[in-house]
Amino acid sequence: MRRALITGGAGFLGSTLADRLLDDGVEVAILDDFRTGRQEFVADALERGADLFEGDVLDEDLLESAIAGADIVFHLQANADVRRGLEHPRKDLRENAIATSNVLEAMRAAGVHRIAFSSTGSVYGEPDVSPTPEDAPFPVQTSLYGASKVAAEGLISAYVHGFGFSATVFRLVSLLGERYTHGHVIDFYRALRRDPTRLRVLGDGRQEKSYLYVKDCVEAMVMATEHQGEAPGLGVYNLGTDATVVVDESVALITAHLGVNPTIEKAGGRRGWAGDSPLIKLDISKIRALGWAPTLSIPEAIGRTLDWLDSEPAIALPSETVAS
Amino acid sequence: MRRALITGGAGFLGSTLADRLLDDGVEVAILDDFRTGRQEFVADALERGADLFEGDVLDEDLLESAIAGADIVFHLQANADVRRGLEHPRKDLRENAIATSNVLEAMRAAGVHRIAFSSTGSVYGEPDVSPTPEDAPFPVQTSLYGASKVAAEGLISAYVHGFGFSATVFRLVSLLGERYTHGHVIDFYRALRRDPTRLRVLGDGRQEKSYLYVKDCVEAMVMATEHQGEAPGLGVYNLGTDATVVVDESVALITAHLGVNPTIEKAGGRRGWAGDSPLIKLDISKIRALGWAPTLSIPEAIGRTLDWLDSEPAIALPSETVAS
Repeated sequence: MRRALITGGAGFLGSTLADRLLDDGVEVAILDDFRTGRQEFVADALERGADLFEGDVLDEDLLESAIAGADIVFHLQANADVRRGLEHPRKDLRENAIATSNVLEAMRAAGVHRIAFSSTGSVYGEPDVSPTPEDAPFPVQTSLYGASKVAAEGLISAYVHGFGFSATVFRLVSLLGERYTHGHVIDFYRALRRDPTRLRVLGDGRQEKSYLYVKDCVEAMVMATEHQGEAPGLGVYNLGTDATVVVDESVALITAHLGVNPTIEKAGGRRGWAGDSPLIKLDISKIRALGWAPTLSIPEAIGRTLDWLDSEPAIALPSETVAS
Repeated sequence: MRRALITGGAGFLGSTLADRLLDDGVEVAILDDFRTGRQEFVADALERGADLFEGDVLDEDLLESAIAGADIVFHLQANADVRRGLEHPRKDLRENAIATSNVLEAMRAAGVHRIAFSSTGSVYGEPDVSPTPEDAPFPVQTSLYGASKVAAEGLISAYVHGFGFSATVFRLVSLLGERYTHGHVIDFYRALRRDPTRLRVLGDGRQEKSYLYVKDCVEAMVMATEHQGEAPGLGVYNLGTDATVVVDESVALITAHLGVNPTIEKAGGRRGWAGDSPLIKLDISKIRALGWAPTLSIPEAIGRTLDWLDSEPAIALPSETVAS
């Protein structure tokens, strides 16, 4: 690849990918609306020559400008507010499926045929098979987020077959590491910094989850995308680790890091929230077969995340949080 | 069910279902924009008391009116122009996925929680397993039509999990029978009525397809929907026959019916068109387990279709076709 457009390029994953591609000498264009992305995450990249397009992929004119000259699009922009899908039932469809349709159409108009896409392990719903392989039985969607990502995957796949696109689709577990800005680690971290004596945990604490260190994720994405190449075709890869942690273990790591000993209050129930899956563990043998392996275990990635939160009080403890 | 809204209720399948529900004493509301639906298909139903709402489900106000008082929605309206998905790449997403999102939101607003949906066997793409069961491996979409139907299925499923909907999803093969207005039988019929000496066939003539008689389809839909009931849950059913025909056999039945002996010109190639699947054969053991069985074989259903076309020259041979 010579020049890459990264949608959502100022976000946690996108900005980490931007830095990594710049290291490789790839020109980078970043499109981001800074709703969850942050200026400081791309400051370095911009200094190293990355171009910034401020807005979202629902703005077709902006998208056209951003895509000009690119030979690949990493389409990472998404509605990442997985938990609140039911509060805004059209939001996932618009920001994940329709947005992806816009990206594909802009690519087609610009003659760009290579795409990498961040999908989610949530597309498997509540799978009968665990660890879940890419060719698991036709899944039943349990969240609007998963449904919208399945829709986006389907569109991409149809462009591979109909328009000769080359596509690499990544079904991700949750990510951890530097620039982490939302999810259970920061929620628990903030809560315990506010009140170290008690911690409220959704669900029963036994939900088993798999996480991946963000830089390991980026390495896998670059490796698989290079492997997929430019010829028409579709590669779908689960990205995660072989291990899992349960919420209770996460809590133990976070309280140990902070040196606190709170009373744990559990809301109970198998799910943390409606649409949450009690177990997401992906079979990653396909990406491993390319020679990739994660460098950090989940506890190490949690540790890296906590160290980073310690060093970034503006993110870890924004003023309204400290004040509350 | 007491009162049913049928979107696409003036179409081939929808109007046949409307008549069937009226036979059962169910009140029927029909929403249709008459792009492919036809006034004469619903004339009987309207006389028997069905209510008509003219427009499409992208019109949210109309949808709200149409849904009032219903306790179930049969959402059949769709972009059925499967072959030309690549000419209008946003059309399938809008008319199938976004339209379904509108229906689901209108249902939620009206407190209606029971939906039946016409999906397609095309969601399986080019399956490795044939006959293809409902829990086939996670499919790769080969058409925008299939992708948009997968998106709609996913949304429906997410509403089952998130909002307690009861949903029955039908993955259909192509339908045949009275009120058939588009597809290969009418294409061949018209071509041979215009010029009985030659017939151009897309693909190599060996594409194997499964078809279902429309009234058999409606019986299966009513049976499975009743079986699914009102409690939250999702039932997914393939609807087809155990048999298949190849295009060459269809052609032989049609030429025999018309008493013509054309030269067959084959375009060649495994697919009839880009995104066409060379084999759609569904495993229908799940719907059979409910006690349903098709009453007509595919050749009988083709015969029924041809008899109907003979009796409906305004549809079978519209003036512009005769003139050309």
